[in-house]
Amino acid sequence: MTQAIMNYGEKIKKDSLAYNLHSWSPQGGLAPKVITKAEGIYFWDADGKRYFDMSSQLVNMNIGHGNKKVVEAIKEQTEKMAFMGPGYAFDVKSEAARKIVEVAPDNMGKVFFTNAGAEANENAIKIARMYTGKYKIFSRYRSYHGATYGAANLTGEKRRFPSEPGIPGFVKFFDPYLYRAPIAFSDEKEATKYYISQLREQILFEGPDKIAAIFLETVTGSNGIIIPPEGYLKGVRELCNEFNIMMVCDEVMAGWGRTGEWFAVNHWDIEPDLITFAKGVTCGYVPLGGVLVSKDIAKFFDDNTLWCGLTYSGHPLGCAAAIATIDVYKEEKLLENSKRMGIILGEILENLKTKHKCVGDVRYIGLFSGIELVKDRTSKEPIVPYGNDPEKIMKKILGMLSSEGFATYNHDNILIVAPPLTISEMELMEAMDIMDKVLDYVDNMIS
Amino acid sequence: MTQAIMNYGEKIKKDSLAYNLHSWSPQGGLAPKVITKAEGIYFWDADGKRYFDMSSQLVNMNIGHGNKKVVEAIKEQTEKMAFMGPGYAFDVKSEAARKIVEVAPDNMGKVFFTNAGAEANENAIKIARMYTGKYKIFSRYRSYHGATYGAANLTGEKRRFPSEPGIPGFVKFFDPYLYRAPIAFSDEKEATKYYISQLREQILFEGPDKIAAIFLETVTGSNGIIIPPEGYLKGVRELCNEFNIMMVCDEVMAGWGRTGEWFAVNHWDIEPDLITFAKGVTCGYVPLGGVLVSKDIAKFFDDNTLWCGLTYSGHPLGCAAAIATIDVYKEEKLLENSKRMGIILGEILENLKTKHKCVGDVRYIGLFSGIELVKDRTSKEPIVPYGNDPEKIMKKILGMLSSEGFATYNHDNILIVAPPLTISEMELMEAMDIMDKVLDYVDNMIS
Ligand SMILES: Cc1ncc(COP(=O)(O)O)c(C=O)c1O
Ligand SMILES: Cc1ncc(COP(=O)(O)O)c(C=O)c1O
Repeated sequence: MTQAIMNYGEKIKKDSLAYNLHSWSPQGGLAPKVITKAEGIYFWDADGKRYFDMSSQLVNMNIGHGNKKVVEAIKEQTEKMAFMGPGYAFDVKSEAARKIVEVAPDNMGKVFFTNAGAEANENAIKIARMYTGKYKIFSRYRSYHGATYGAANLTGEKRRFPSEPGIPGFVKFFDPYLYRAPIAFSDEKEATKYYISQLREQILFEGPDKIAAIFLETVTGSNGIIIPPEGYLKGVRELCNEFNIMMVCDEVMAGWGRTGEWFAVNHWDIEPDLITFAKGVTCGYVPLGGVLVSKDIAKFFDDNTLWCGLTYSGHPLGCAAAIATIDVYKEEKLLENSKRMGIILGEILENLKTKHKCVGDVRYIGLFSGIELVKDRTSKEPIVPYGNDPEKIMKKILGMLSSEGFATYNHDNILIVAPPLTISEMELMEAMDIMDKVLDYVDNMIS
Repeated sequence: MTQAIMNYGEKIKKDSLAYNLHSWSPQGGLAPKVITKAEGIYFWDADGKRYFDMSSQLVNMNIGHGNKKVVEAIKEQTEKMAFMGPGYAFDVKSEAARKIVEVAPDNMGKVFFTNAGAEANENAIKIARMYTGKYKIFSRYRSYHGATYGAANLTGEKRRFPSEPGIPGFVKFFDPYLYRAPIAFSDEKEATKYYISQLREQILFEGPDKIAAIFLETVTGSNGIIIPPEGYLKGVRELCNEFNIMMVCDEVMAGWGRTGEWFAVNHWDIEPDLITFAKGVTCGYVPLGGVLVSKDIAKFFDDNTLWCGLTYSGHPLGCAAAIATIDVYKEEKLLENSKRMGIILGEILENLKTKHKCVGDVRYIGLFSGIELVKDRTSKEPIVPYGNDPEKIMKKILGMLSSEGFATYNHDNILIVAPPLTISEMELMEAMDIMDKVLDYVDNMIS
């Protein structure tokens, strides 16, 4: 690496610290890596060091960086018509919506486009309320739905607090997190029975005729890849049917092949009333999100005003990117690869769990997985306390991974492993060897 | 126009009605125009008909459609690195923030990037609360700040209602809308004195030690281009100083040359604590918005966690587009043109007011203007009642304008006139001749 390029990196970092506010942290003492290049499952810093992108950035880069087809589609649309307002119709907006509806569950009818995930959930709240005429909104602890006021009030972890005092009518319930459930269930079915009956009771006490929607991440993402037990989603669907409550599945992170299916609900054959999406729909090449609504809901809005809007709803570049991205999923058979590599990843993770005493639990579905680190496997005491890491242990672990070229992030004591769906078996094994090595250190750390 | 192209347009419209949910309206009976091309101050529908874009879409297309420099910058960045997550630093994110701070008021320090305007306001709410440790948020009736929950609760018109029951601690006050003020003020200064003293009283009754921020559109945009009277913004600034309240100017619509200055606050030499922006920063070529915070606020977050975040914060394409757009404002001297054409537009509007009895008021600053239609100039009775247009009178007027090639939108009885800042005197006169002609019809309508 030449001195000139080193200085270039330093200048970018200096300006970034001088002029950018960075997310979710105090700004003093930040030392963001300067990234100069990204391709496929890799990206490079200003020193020329290469990283496996083992979290697909924020679990959005499903097709990998620099996909030629998507790049060309964006360039072409930029040249043709970079922007047109939401009041008009144009080719890519119609086509993107049609293609999204085509891969969605059969009951889905129309799409309302937003810029990203938080706004998708914001609009789903409004749509569920308008459609049902009810106002209470249920969502779960141990969930993340975005950082705008409505999405943050859906959110069940501490990133909600800056958006409190909370919105009237937002109610939280507990999710089935079996690894740390307060009851020792004999199997998934028994757990499901417990959680669904608890939810039913809470619905009765909150007033079924007041409740517009139940929001849930189909597979909980940033809070640690928590997969619903057998029968759980079906149970929620039945409660929603019983009480005329909209079932809203947040597939912002779990959708678009991440779990090996177009949408995670496909694994359990569930038809939600609304699906919110973002991330994988364009993989972040251009910001785009949206709400899929059922045909019934779509029909309701034929005669009722849809009180939703934003300047960039149905942005031409976002729509063009979505069309190309969906084609890439199909042409490159990425759902199949996600499934196939997911099985291999699952085996690797189970081996890591057997080998390393610091691994309390591993959870995986497709290429969506998490490794839960503990101080002690029997007590299950997390390696860092909830919502806190005074000794910066997780930061150290991420630092070790990163210095070996394995880039990812954590949530509390859980490491996210969610590479681009384009990853090959060789690459996956090579990257996970780094994880294996770092977990050796962690084993030593706790002994 | 050939039959083939006609059918192409019909297909796009059909799919759009089948698969897209359209903003702020019932979906049945919609007939969105299909747009196939846009260049400079014009766009074209599928029949080849050309329109003057006299609202710059949603008052965002300040540099006009298809600007070569911005198009090239987006294409280049797409090729280089379409996406990188918010945890990293990279060239265009640093540079865009620096360039934005450079053209902002002197007290501004850093930028937090969002996808668009609503999210900019959402984050400004959180930042003001974190910085002050207080929670109440003041904003004004007759304002629009976006449609997500927090931004909608700032909003002072009916687009807020679907986001109620409201958030605790959000308080509204009345803006100085002198054309319809309940008191006949002798001059602007007297009006200012009244509104500032009213606001001061409301602050005292709401508890100054509870109030985190006062949000206001520097020049009210979509609610009808309402320009603050002399001394008003200074008065608000002084109240904010007195009570340690953050002054947040929403420049999503008024910023970026729209009024003839980088930011509308420049007209009155005001330094707000936070400025929210979107639209003109990229003109919508790529979605981007953000919050500018003062150096004092930036410093506070050196040691305090910034509880803000979104997947696409500091998106590479948005940042690349912002850099190029700012260069275009400078190189094409668009602020100067906005000022110069604004004076001509002002003269035209005053003439229209003299000539047409349906024109109750005209308001203009730079290329940001509104025409307020009345049934009667003496009673000032609006041509349509507040929040309602049972006879679809405004729709008819927009239809007439559109069929003559003049595209814009309305808010209640107010027509927005805000063409791209690239418009020439000839083009402006040609477009406003259409307005003149249509106002003849309207005169007849009301007599
Ligand atoms: C499940 C889920 N919902 C919503 C969001 C918010 O999306 P965005 O950051 O695009 O606003 C996220 C972001 O990580 C997410 O994981
Ligand atoms: C003054 C103002 N603030 C905020 C917004 C919301 O911006 P967006 O539609 O990009 O969310 C708008 C949109 O028109 C606006 O005019």
